[in-house]
Amino acid sequence: MRIAIDGMGGDNAPKAVIEGVVQGLKDFKDIEFYITGPEEVLKAELDKHEADLSRIKLINATEVISPNEHPVMAIRKKKDSSMVKALNLVKNKECDAIISAGSTGAFLGGSTLIVGRIKGIERPALAPIMPGKNGAFMVIDAGANVDCKPHYLVQFAKMGLIYFESVLNVKNPNVGLINIGEEEEKGNDLTKQAFKLLKEEDLNFVGNVEPREVPKGDVNVLVCDGFVGNTVLKMYEGVASTIFSLLKNEIMASSFTKIGGLFLKPVFKSLKKKFDYKEYGGAPFLGVDGICIKAHGSSDARAFKNAIRQAESFYSNGLIDKIKLSVKQEENN
Amino acid sequence: MRIAIDGMGGDNAPKAVIEGVVQGLKDFKDIEFYITGPEEVLKAELDKHEADLSRIKLINATEVISPNEHPVMAIRKKKDSSMVKALNLVKNKECDAIISAGSTGAFLGGSTLIVGRIKGIERPALAPIMPGKNGAFMVIDAGANVDCKPHYLVQFAKMGLIYFESVLNVKNPNVGLINIGEEEEKGNDLTKQAFKLLKEEDLNFVGNVEPREVPKGDVNVLVCDGFVGNTVLKMYEGVASTIFSLLKNEIMASSFTKIGGLFLKPVFKSLKKKFDYKEYGGAPFLGVDGICIKAHGSSDARAFKNAIRQAESFYSNGLIDKIKLSVKQEENN
Repeated sequence: MRIAIDGMGGDNAPKAVIEGVVQGLKDFKDIEFYITGPEEVLKAELDKHEADLSRIKLINATEVISPNEHPVMAIRKKKDSSMVKALNLVKNKECDAIISAGSTGAFLGGSTLIVGRIKGIERPALAPIMPGKNGAFMVIDAGANVDCKPHYLVQFAKMGLIYFESVLNVKNPNVGLINIGEEEEKGNDLTKQAFKLLKEEDLNFVGNVEPREVPKGDVNVLVCDGFVGNTVLKMYEGVASTIFSLLKNEIMASSFTKIGGLFLKPVFKSLKKKFDYKEYGGAPFLGVDGICIKAHGSSDARAFKNAIRQAESFYSNGLIDKIKLSVKQEENN
Repeated sequence: MRIAIDGMGGDNAPKAVIEGVVQGLKDFKDIEFYITGPEEVLKAELDKHEADLSRIKLINATEVISPNEHPVMAIRKKKDSSMVKALNLVKNKECDAIISAGSTGAFLGGSTLIVGRIKGIERPALAPIMPGKNGAFMVIDAGANVDCKPHYLVQFAKMGLIYFESVLNVKNPNVGLINIGEEEEKGNDLTKQAFKLLKEEDLNFVGNVEPREVPKGDVNVLVCDGFVGNTVLKMYEGVASTIFSLLKNEIMASSFTKIGGLFLKPVFKSLKKKFDYKEYGGAPFLGVDGICIKAHGSSDARAFKNAIRQAESFYSNGLIDKIKLSVKQEENN
């Protein structure tokens, strides 16, 4: 397998990117890495490690797309950016997958424009996998499509279920509709219509799931429009980090509570790990005709390594073909 | 002041309701309470306390609206329910405010149908006040209007700011638009248009606020449509309760960590208090022509007492008149 790596994407690039690739080289003996970015910069970073360079190819790219740029404009203008060059590697079938921690907007726009949609998929969707109390769950769409039509959500559901079954190895995964009430008639125009469509399909559809229930992780795939999905995602991050930071402040406030904090170090460590999205790699962008994985902007080396593992599993399970098959079955019905 | 109390609304009614009223009688010497519900049941509950009965009036109501009923149908059919009778007391000016912990849908529908909108307000909005890291914040609308037009959000902003200034005594409060990106051009059709309208108004508008920033409590009033607001609210509850329950499980898992838990008891107590929405009473339903406060379904006596304090402050600050004045100024512009 060959993976294109956006060497300059993310807050910690290129250092964390290169470190992640070096770890990936050790774990996956059959993967070649095509890293894009200013060659000298990447080389200097690689020199810090003892890596198997025979499986690394540096692709020179002189520009970088920043998260503050207009996404589509940046993709169109910066042809020599690390992100566009990496996307082109996938488009031209020189690579089987791309991982980038760069600008989300640019990556989604670029994946759609350059790699292209799978024929029959109306809207590709961002599908991060999150840690829940009782298991991992996927929110789809998490920000690629802010205004959705009801039948988009049915395609999101199908793609999410295929991912859970193939990549995460969950048997007969279930899907729910994020909604502000449990009953079928609750919600806005979009959810009311999407509910009807989802019910008609032959899916393991559990009905509406209130946001309060989302963190439990009892439902594998949660479909919604991109605005709501992004809100769910960012509330999850925001509330968790607020609680942990308040907890830390309170513990550090007195020597008495500091002692308690020492006793509970393993608890906090395990909790932090449990709530660490980096465990799951990145967010797959499902529905494009290539393996496009968006790593979190603040990804560290471990997050990159996990995204590599994720891309490998995506590839070896033939997910793209499975999505194509599902679309074909749809058309035949 | 006279407050109508839905004696049978909420998971813990009538016990917690009556307890809250008894506490309210002690704290507020100038309030009379009109409690609706089956007279014998309410009387039996009151007999458990030594209360100043001279300021309590029981209004017999034989029916109860459950959260599972169709809201508007229930309001229309159950004329003799504790909720409808309490709403009528406000409509007929026999009471100055109503507090109910009953079905949210029925309460919002009933307040609009029976008490009525303030002339010029397009859509009344549910406006819970939540605890944030650096201060309290309001989410408006939190579920009354799932599909919103951009200019509704401007009215939500104005009503929220008036509430913060008058009832919560915050000088020059600020308002933000909940959105999935910081920049003006981010978001869906609704937020893009609402941003423009909010910017044109003479408000302390801070721009877009990403859901990740919401729990910090740096922005007082957060406007959004009711679907997004309800999602924010329920994610807040869901993530916090998931983290606290995981923390508890982990602490109880070994005697070592149990010791740490003992040391940190004050920390958890203070954190739990900090994240307790019951501190702020209920959620005001702003834009109706009367003081309508929705207490949380699981309200205990303290939550009811705080809702009473809130209704008193709402009343003594003449909030309804201030909203009416703001609408008039709008019309004159």
